[in-house]
Amino acid sequence: MGALAAAIAIGLAALGAGLGNGMIVSKTVEGIARQPELKGSLQTTMFIGVALVEAIPIIAAVIAFMVVFQ
Amino acid sequence: MGALAAAIAIGLAALGAGLGNGMIVSKTVEGIARQPELKGSLQTTMFIGVALVEAIPIIAAVIAFMVVFQ
Amino acid sequence: MGALAAAIAIGLAALGAGLGNGMIVSKTVEGIARQPELKGSLQTTMFIGVALVEAIPIIAAVIAFMVVFQ
Amino acid sequence: MGALAAAIAIGLAALGAGLGNGMIVSKTVEGIARQPELKGSLQTTMFIGVALVEAIPIIAAVIAFMVVFQ
Amino acid sequence: MGALAAAIAIGLAALGAGLGNGMIVSKTVEGIARQPELKGSLQTTMFIGVALVEAIPIIAAVIAFMVVFQ
Amino acid sequence: MGALAAAIAIGLAALGAGLGNGMIVSKTVEGIARQPELKGSLQTTMFIGVALVEAIPIIAAVIAFMVVFQ
Amino acid sequence: MGALAAAIAIGLAALGAGLGNGMIVSKTVEGIARQPELKGSLQTTMFIGVALVEAIPIIAAVIAFMVVFQ
Amino acid sequence: MGALAAAIAIGLAALGAGLGNGMIVSKTVEGIARQPELKGSLQTTMFIGVALVEAIPIIAAVIAFMVVFQ
Amino acid sequence: MGALAAAIAIGLAALGAGLGNGMIVSKTVEGIARQPELKGSLQTTMFIGVALVEAIPIIAAVIAFMVVFQ
Amino acid sequence: MGALAAAIAIGLAALGAGLGNGMIVSKTVEGIARQPELKGSLQTTMFIGVALVEAIPIIAAVIAFMVVFQ
Amino acid sequence: MGALAAAIAIGLAALGAGLGNGMIVSKTVEGIARQPELKGSLQTTMFIGVALVEAIPIIAAVIAFMVVFQ
Amino acid sequence: MGALAAAIAIGLAALGAGLGNGMIVSKTVEGIARQPELKGSLQTTMFIGVALVEAIPIIAAVIAFMVVFQ
Amino acid sequence: MGALAAAIAIGLAALGAGLGNGMIVSKTVEGIARQPELKGSLQTTMFIGVALVEAIPIIAAVIAFMVVFQ
Amino acid sequence: MGALAAAIAIGLAALGAGLGNGMIVSKTVEGIARQPELKGSLQTTMFIGVALVEAIPIIAAVIAFMVVFQ
Repeated sequence: MGALAAAIAIGLAALGAGLGNGMIVSKTVEGIARQPELKGSLQTTMFIGVALVEAIPIIAAVIAFMVVFQ
Repeated sequence: MGALAAAIAIGLAALGAGLGNGMIVSKTVEGIARQPELKGSLQTTMFIGVALVEAIPIIAAVIAFMVVFQ
Repeated sequence: MGALAAAIAIGLAALGAGLGNGMIVSKTVEGIARQPELKGSLQTTMFIGVALVEAIPIIAAVIAFMVVFQ
Repeated sequence: MGALAAAIAIGLAALGAGLGNGMIVSKTVEGIARQPELKGSLQTTMFIGVALVEAIPIIAAVIAFMVVFQ
Repeated sequence: MGALAAAIAIGLAALGAGLGNGMIVSKTVEGIARQPELKGSLQTTMFIGVALVEAIPIIAAVIAFMVVFQ
Repeated sequence: MGALAAAIAIGLAALGAGLGNGMIVSKTVEGIARQPELKGSLQTTMFIGVALVEAIPIIAAVIAFMVVFQ
Repeated sequence: MGALAAAIAIGLAALGAGLGNGMIVSKTVEGIARQPELKGSLQTTMFIGVALVEAIPIIAAVIAFMVVFQ
Repeated sequence: MGALAAAIAIGLAALGAGLGNGMIVSKTVEGIARQPELKGSLQTTMFIGVALVEAIPIIAAVIAFMVVFQ
Repeated sequence: MGALAAAIAIGLAALGAGLGNGMIVSKTVEGIARQPELKGSLQTTMFIGVALVEAIPIIAAVIAFMVVFQ
Repeated sequence: MGALAAAIAIGLAALGAGLGNGMIVSKTVEGIARQPELKGSLQTTMFIGVALVEAIPIIAAVIAFMVVFQ
Repeated sequence: MGALAAAIAIGLAALGAGLGNGMIVSKTVEGIARQPELKGSLQTTMFIGVALVEAIPIIAAVIAFMVVFQ
Repeated sequence: MGALAAAIAIGLAALGAGLGNGMIVSKTVEGIARQPELKGSLQTTMFIGVALVEAIPIIAAVIAFMVVFQ
Repeated sequence: MGALAAAIAIGLAALGAGLGNGMIVSKTVEGIARQPELKGSLQTTMFIGVALVEAIPIIAAVIAFMVVFQ
Repeated sequence: MGALAAAIAIGLAALGAGLGNGMIVSKTVEGIARQPELKGSLQTTMFIGVALVEAIPIIAAVIAFMVVFQ
């Protein structure tokens, strides 16, 4: 049961992180293509946003490792 | 059963946090690309919003840890 | 069964809160980017709305804690 | 079975309340950003609407507490 | 089985009432923001609509209470 | 099994009635906001429509009560 | 098993009738708001359409009653 | 098992007929509101279309009755 | 098991036929409302299309009857 | 098990054929309404397309018949 | 188990082929209605595309036949 | 269990390949209808894209054959 | 259980790769149709993107082969 | 159970990575087609975004390998 639990946790986390980051980065690329002179501040905001999005999935990864080694 | 429960809790939390944060940060990036002089107040609002969105998923992470160590 | 129930309760609550707050905060950010002079009253409305949205998920968190310690 | 039932009840209620309130408050924020002088009557309507939306989920919370203590 | 049935009934009712009321109230807020002088008749229609929407979920709540105390 | 059946019947009926009435009433509110002088005939049509929408869910409520008292 | 079958039949029928009627009546309200002088013929078409939509759900209600009393 | 089968058959048929007829009749109402002089031929086409849509659900109703009386 | 199989076959067939025919007939009604002089050839195409759409569901109905009488 | 398998095969095939043919024929009707002089070549393309769409569902029907008579 | 497997394989294949071919052929019909002089090269591309889309579903049909006769 | 596994593998692969190829080829047809002089390079890109899309489903087909003959 | 696991892994991977590559290649085709002189750099970016998308599904294929031969 | 868990983990990861990368790369291709002189900085942002998206799925792949060899 531990392996199945780890799989569900990391799988849903990967799905959530993929969709969330995809939305953020694709908007950033669109913004840079529209106004190239703002590349710096858009990328800064992107890094902050991606870090915030990744927070919960990384906890999920930690839990998945814990459950596997349990 | 504890590991499976932790997996479901953290997995749905990661999905919710990913979608919610993705919507907020992508709108912020779009707003900065449109009006660069508002970068400060948009990022402030973004941080407040992300903190509010993360509140429930972090409780979910706490519950997941509790259930794993139970 | 208690752990599984807590996981479902907090997981759906996190999903609901994430989507609801995401909609509210992203519209607020969009509104500030359009009319920066209204930042104060938009944030006030945002805080009220987020507090109202968080009401039910926090009850869900309380129930999840009760079910875990039961 | 009681704990699982409480989890389903409060979870779906949180999801419904989150989506419903999110729609109402985000439209209110959009309306204030468009016409700031109507802030009072828009917020009044928002409070009435949120109260009406929260009615059924609060009954769901009551039922969830009853089922847990049963 | 009674508790589970009550949870399903009140949960789906809360979801339906949340979505239905959310659509009605958000359109009303939008309408008031567009034409403030119609606030009275729009709110009257909103109250009638919300009452009609809430009819079936309240029956669902009654059935949920009956099933719990059965 | 009777309680579960009543819950499914009234739950789906509440969901259907919520969505159907939400669409009708929100369009009526939008129509009144656009042409206030037609308030009477729009509300008349709304009442007829809501009554027609509620017909099947009310039969569902009757069946749910029958199944509970069976 | 009979009660569960009746619940599924009437529940799906209520969902289908709610969505179908909601689409028809909301379009009729929109049409009257656009051209008030056509109120008569639009309502006539609406009644015919609603009657045709309700045909199968009413058969479903009949089957649900038959299955309950079986 | 016969009652459950009848419920699934008539339930899905009601859902399909509701959605199909809803699309046809709402487009007809929209067409009459746009060009009132074509009311006759639009309604004729609507009746033909509704009859064609209802063909399979009515066979489903027949099968449901057969399965119940089996 | 035969009755359940017949129900699934005819139910999915009714859903598919309802959606497919709904799309075809609603487009035809829209086309006639736009160009009334093409009513003949549009209806001819509609009849051919509906016949082609109905082909597989009718085979499904045949299989459902065969399975019931088996 | 054979009857259930036949039902799933023919049901999904009917759903796929209904959606695919619906898309093709509705576009053809729209195209004829826009340019009536191309009725011949549009219908020819429609027949070819429908025949190609129907290929796999007809194999599904063959398999369903084989499974029923097995 | 073999019949059920064949049904799932051919059913999903029919669904995928129906949606894919529907998208291709409907775009082709739309393109011919817009530029009739390109009928030849559009149909050529359509045939190539349909053949490529049908490749995997035909393998699925082969596997379904193999599983049935196994 | 081997037959069921082969069915799921080839079925999902057919669904994925159908949707992916459908998107690519329909865009290519649209592009040729807009600019006929680019037919060569658009078809070249289409062939490369389709080949890349088909890579994983063909591995899925290989696995399905391996599982059937196992 | 190994065959079923391989089927789920390769099936979901084929679905993900199909959708992801479909989006990339269809945008590339659209871009070339709009600006033919950029064909080289668009195809270069497409190859890089497709390679990055295919990375995880190919690992999934490896795992599926490992699980089958286990 | 280990093989099934690995399949779910890598399958959901492939789905998430496919959708996320697809969104990013397709927007990048669109941006290059619109402003070819920004090719460098758009591709840089794309590589950063893809790397961030791939982070969690690669952890999922690691967990899947661990679970298989366990």
